[in-house]
Amino acid sequence: MKRRDFITTTAIGASSLALLGCRRAEENKSVAINRGKKVKLKLATSWPAHFPIMGTGVDTFANRCKQLSGGSLEIQVYPKNILVPALQVFDTTSAAQIDAFHSGVYYWKGKNSAFSIFGGMPLGLTSEEMITWLKFGGGYDLWRELYGKFNLYPIIGGTTGPQMGGWFKKEIQTLADLKGLKMRIPGLGGEVMQRLGVNPVLLPAGEIYTSLERGTIDATEWVGPYLDKMMGFDKAASYYYTGWHEPGSILEITLNKTRWEKLSTEHQAIITTASEEMTGNMLQEFRYKNAQALQELPKSVQIKSFSKEIIRAAKVALDEVLYDESQKNDDFKRVLQSYQTFTQLNKAWDDISTKNFLEIRS
Amino acid sequence: MKRRDFITTTAIGASSLALLGCRRAEENKSVAINRGKKVKLKLATSWPAHFPIMGTGVDTFANRCKQLSGGSLEIQVYPKNILVPALQVFDTTSAAQIDAFHSGVYYWKGKNSAFSIFGGMPLGLTSEEMITWLKFGGGYDLWRELYGKFNLYPIIGGTTGPQMGGWFKKEIQTLADLKGLKMRIPGLGGEVMQRLGVNPVLLPAGEIYTSLERGTIDATEWVGPYLDKMMGFDKAASYYYTGWHEPGSILEITLNKTRWEKLSTEHQAIITTASEEMTGNMLQEFRYKNAQALQELPKSVQIKSFSKEIIRAAKVALDEVLYDESQKNDDFKRVLQSYQTFTQLNKAWDDISTKNFLEIRS
Repeated sequence: MKRRDFITTTAIGASSLALLGCRRAEENKSVAINRGKKVKLKLATSWPAHFPIMGTGVDTFANRCKQLSGGSLEIQVYPKNILVPALQVFDTTSAAQIDAFHSGVYYWKGKNSAFSIFGGMPLGLTSEEMITWLKFGGGYDLWRELYGKFNLYPIIGGTTGPQMGGWFKKEIQTLADLKGLKMRIPGLGGEVMQRLGVNPVLLPAGEIYTSLERGTIDATEWVGPYLDKMMGFDKAASYYYTGWHEPGSILEITLNKTRWEKLSTEHQAIITTASEEMTGNMLQEFRYKNAQALQELPKSVQIKSFSKEIIRAAKVALDEVLYDESQKNDDFKRVLQSYQTFTQLNKAWDDISTKNFLEIRS
Repeated sequence: MKRRDFITTTAIGASSLALLGCRRAEENKSVAINRGKKVKLKLATSWPAHFPIMGTGVDTFANRCKQLSGGSLEIQVYPKNILVPALQVFDTTSAAQIDAFHSGVYYWKGKNSAFSIFGGMPLGLTSEEMITWLKFGGGYDLWRELYGKFNLYPIIGGTTGPQMGGWFKKEIQTLADLKGLKMRIPGLGGEVMQRLGVNPVLLPAGEIYTSLERGTIDATEWVGPYLDKMMGFDKAASYYYTGWHEPGSILEITLNKTRWEKLSTEHQAIITTASEEMTGNMLQEFRYKNAQALQELPKSVQIKSFSKEIIRAAKVALDEVLYDESQKNDDFKRVLQSYQTFTQLNKAWDDISTKNFLEIRS
């Protein structure tokens, strides 16, 4: 009900003041069971307004929360840099200056290197497997414990599905071809590439295309065919490598923990359920649109995979990165142990189920 | 609010009859926006009460609907054979004798052979891919159109993930080993097996173990390690074959269409969102519990895969089954075309993304 409707109804009630008027209100009340007060939450994102899939996904999520709550839970979505700069959403939510954010977990490595594992692991778990680890394998408990130190409460808020390895201006055949290459690649993937001789570069999204086109950088990774094509990378590089570093990156709806705990059980349930819906839809939308975009790439683009030599070296380098970080950070060590325990359990089953199905149908 | 509470509240209101009382009701009304009337739905399932994952999944779904609606949407879950026999749920919902059912789509082949495709395809799409086809590839439109003829409105209501190929008392090495085998295997998988010389047998769930143990049947398929172990099959047969016929079976929450259309937009949204949550949770729970159960199988159990010869023959037989059914049933032909168009689009992308990731991490 809009404020104006409320005033009108009240005015009529006051003018008649009949028992009937009172009873009508009571009847309406009878269906308002446990409804709770009207709540408004400010949620900032790390994406431009209505950015495809990530941005439209969180818009749909907010609409769904409103709909499920009969209008009593209103989440106002602010695109990046409107209320808060894209990468300040963690700190401002932690400080309760806003109520919540929607972002990628891989952005918060600087806060605690353990967080990068909740966002996904090179050569590791797919989206469905990551979510299974978080929900059933103990991952969520650790994530909530460690975010709790920042007074934050994280919820899985979408996932990209498998990402591509990136765009290269020249073909990469051997490890030697990687040496000295300037590549835009963040996160654990970037650290691995660095150990293989690549020079990882950080660039704002708006500068990547021009840098690649002009040869200021030799390569860049982004997401997958659908979003990469929107960035125009197929016009600036010809070699498109299959993925290895982001098998299933996790996005998050994270709330200020004090704010979360003050919400009614019902509003908490609405946010949780709507996040689950967003996560499934996002994964499926990425699958469909990536499949379509792959068909539409120009013929100049060659799909390549890194050689066994490169993948083998990447595994060795990754193990070194994980070992070094475990020595430095106990949180990282604990989260990694939980992740690896699940990975081992999962792999024996996945090898004879999903992997087997994908192989025999080929 | 219960009827009794309503009467009590009204009585208090009537006894004071103050403006204050009236205003308080109005304030409560202000958060009851679009709440709608209290609705009760009778939903029958094809599972025993609280059957693991499928049954507990729909219990959780019903609780979630109640919670999300502030108590205004109550779905009463009836296990199989309480209100309705397990395989009568389709007809009784169609006839509006109950409001809804939770079951497996593969059961309704006899109503229209096209329905079997919505439930999953041997050697075909995984759960995530099936859902993507239904939501983004046109599958849902066809499903709703064809169920509409039975006055039914289907919603994806869970999925089993990849299933196993089944338990065999003897090792199967060649096509010759399949000839004359008595196997409990329903659906399209059963039709394919029949063309390979197997004698498919239908048995009630309660009789499968004894039949296998006594050698009345030579083999049976069921679901996967978790539910199969509960059935005790690991004590009655030693050869456990990896899957080929059920890569991603789809379950359904299906409502009587007239009843669905009479629900408020909000209650429709609650059912849709809670179904999405159930689907994700069920897939992840199956993954986790199957992985655990696989570890716990006795050492007497040997995990085997069918030979390339058998898989190749199964593909040929499947193509024949699909061709024959397409000649007989135009609905089947249309649904198959939609399924195959998506399959082709999806495969090019999946081969270089998910399949690639599962292979390089090994």
